[in-house]
Amino acid sequence: MSALSLHDLYLARQRIHGLVRSTPLELSPSLSRHLGTPVYLKLEALQTTGSFKLRGASNAIAALSAEQRACGVVTASTGNHGRAVAHAAAQLGVKATVFLSQLVPANKVQAIRDLGAEVCIVGHSQDDAQQAAQQHAEQQGATLIPPFDHPQVIAGQGTLGLEIIEQLPEVEQVLIPLSGGGLFAGVALAMKSIKPAITTHGISMQRGAAMYASLQAGKPVEVEELPTLADSLGGGIGLGNQHTLSMTQRLLDQLHLLPEASIANGMRHAYQHERLVLEGAGAVGIAALLDGLVTARGPVVVVVSGRNVDSAQHQRVINGGDA
Amino acid sequence: MSALSLHDLYLARQRIHGLVRSTPLELSPSLSRHLGTPVYLKLEALQTTGSFKLRGASNAIAALSAEQRACGVVTASTGNHGRAVAHAAAQLGVKATVFLSQLVPANKVQAIRDLGAEVCIVGHSQDDAQQAAQQHAEQQGATLIPPFDHPQVIAGQGTLGLEIIEQLPEVEQVLIPLSGGGLFAGVALAMKSIKPAITTHGISMQRGAAMYASLQAGKPVEVEELPTLADSLGGGIGLGNQHTLSMTQRLLDQLHLLPEASIANGMRHAYQHERLVLEGAGAVGIAALLDGLVTARGPVVVVVSGRNVDSAQHQRVINGGDA
Repeated sequence: MSALSLHDLYLARQRIHGLVRSTPLELSPSLSRHLGTPVYLKLEALQTTGSFKLRGASNAIAALSAEQRACGVVTASTGNHGRAVAHAAAQLGVKATVFLSQLVPANKVQAIRDLGAEVCIVGHSQDDAQQAAQQHAEQQGATLIPPFDHPQVIAGQGTLGLEIIEQLPEVEQVLIPLSGGGLFAGVALAMKSIKPAITTHGISMQRGAAMYASLQAGKPVEVEELPTLADSLGGGIGLGNQHTLSMTQRLLDQLHLLPEASIANGMRHAYQHERLVLEGAGAVGIAALLDGLVTARGPVVVVVSGRNVDSAQHQRVINGGDA
Repeated sequence: MSALSLHDLYLARQRIHGLVRSTPLELSPSLSRHLGTPVYLKLEALQTTGSFKLRGASNAIAALSAEQRACGVVTASTGNHGRAVAHAAAQLGVKATVFLSQLVPANKVQAIRDLGAEVCIVGHSQDDAQQAAQQHAEQQGATLIPPFDHPQVIAGQGTLGLEIIEQLPEVEQVLIPLSGGGLFAGVALAMKSIKPAITTHGISMQRGAAMYASLQAGKPVEVEELPTLADSLGGGIGLGNQHTLSMTQRLLDQLHLLPEASIANGMRHAYQHERLVLEGAGAVGIAALLDGLVTARGPVVVVVSGRNVDSAQHQRVINGGDA
């Protein structure tokens, strides 16, 4: 497959129509006052399954042939991608198997089952689960749905960028959480293709920013994974990265790395001023604005990417205990 | 105007198309397990301005003649209705004036201004503000938009019921917050007109339930207004009530009165299990289910009506301090 283009994003949109929500874009009076320019929140945390991941997973599964669909799909994610694959597969009548290690807490296992997937508990680490998922794919002919470095996944996430441009054609800057780069690459491709002058900001956390290290090195590198409030942004970009690193190199204007206290601050602001319960990764754009990292210039859109946070952790943060 | 019919609700829907969101209906795994039957949340708390009130206000303003529009609209509400009138009027290019007393905190005043309304600060009580609003209406020819006892307001709220029936034709029971009765009457009219066998539950708080007292008395009566977590449900139904009392008499199957501890419990459940920040009035349906007040029988829809809660109060509740 050659490089992704705007055309692929429009195909993705057709494919996932009816499977995902078009999410609201909402003016934030408090952030607009803070920055001195209109700030809009793209409320993708209100997407079905609670994060943008449903777009990519739905597109990747919907793009499979009838034969591939018949053999099912498989993943090893315990997080937003796992939820998305489970839900999208159920909607499309495709069997999904999610491999989880024995360490995954019962409530997360139940949540994946609630979404209609078959759960297999194997081994004692995420690596064990990942290996078992690959084995299952090879032996059963099921298709492994990767979390970000896959053209159809990136194209699916890009539909979020199409929505933003249509909801606010005058947008000048966009803030996008940056981890493996699927969301960033898709949204930035959509928006820069239509309006090249847009400034893109990628936001990561200081603790274990694999894409930042890889951009610095000019190739995929591994970083130590550290506990962070933005846990959805953790993990590597894959040493064999095929798509998202090069797209990020091409489409990223500014990259910001946030300390934990800033991420907590973003979550608190979202709760107090926007009445939103957000996971850390979903609040990094708000946090970057509050930290003064973005210069006011024309309308700003902040991608608010997800809300799947442990409620006890969220409560500690809003009570000021986790900063 | 003769009695409202389904036809009026469809006209309202045409009128407010593009002014309000069609809000998501989402399965709640935790409440479904609790009740032993599928429970869906109608997430009207995600409506623009944070509550269902935008539907009624938009319909009432959109139904005005060009001459009436030119003279503007006026209200004295500090709460969800005031926000809704301000926003709807701005969207329709109609001047809105909101009268507030000097007691209204600065952040609430700012929130109404942010929505585009002109704010007039008068007197020392809600009654003073209400009187000034009526005077303004008489002197300026502006149209007073009442919060619930008005056919076009009821018809606007009824569009929420049309959406529910279309999103889940198999619905058997619906739980609706009950205060002045605009939301209840509209939603119940929509759903019973299309599917007469549906069981309607109206949910009020124990502390100052004016509609309950009026239903008992068979006529509008006043009750003492008491502080409650469900403050949006407070206030009387109007001694000259024309519409909502008789509609509620006709359309209500079961009425439940909740103690404060139950309302707090509903807010906590929404936060912990649905990641929703809800005002007390928005959580009463969830609270009624958790209290075991509804018998399991076919799919249940809970109308989650609003999220405009003071964040400090919400935080006290989820921390267990307000029950």
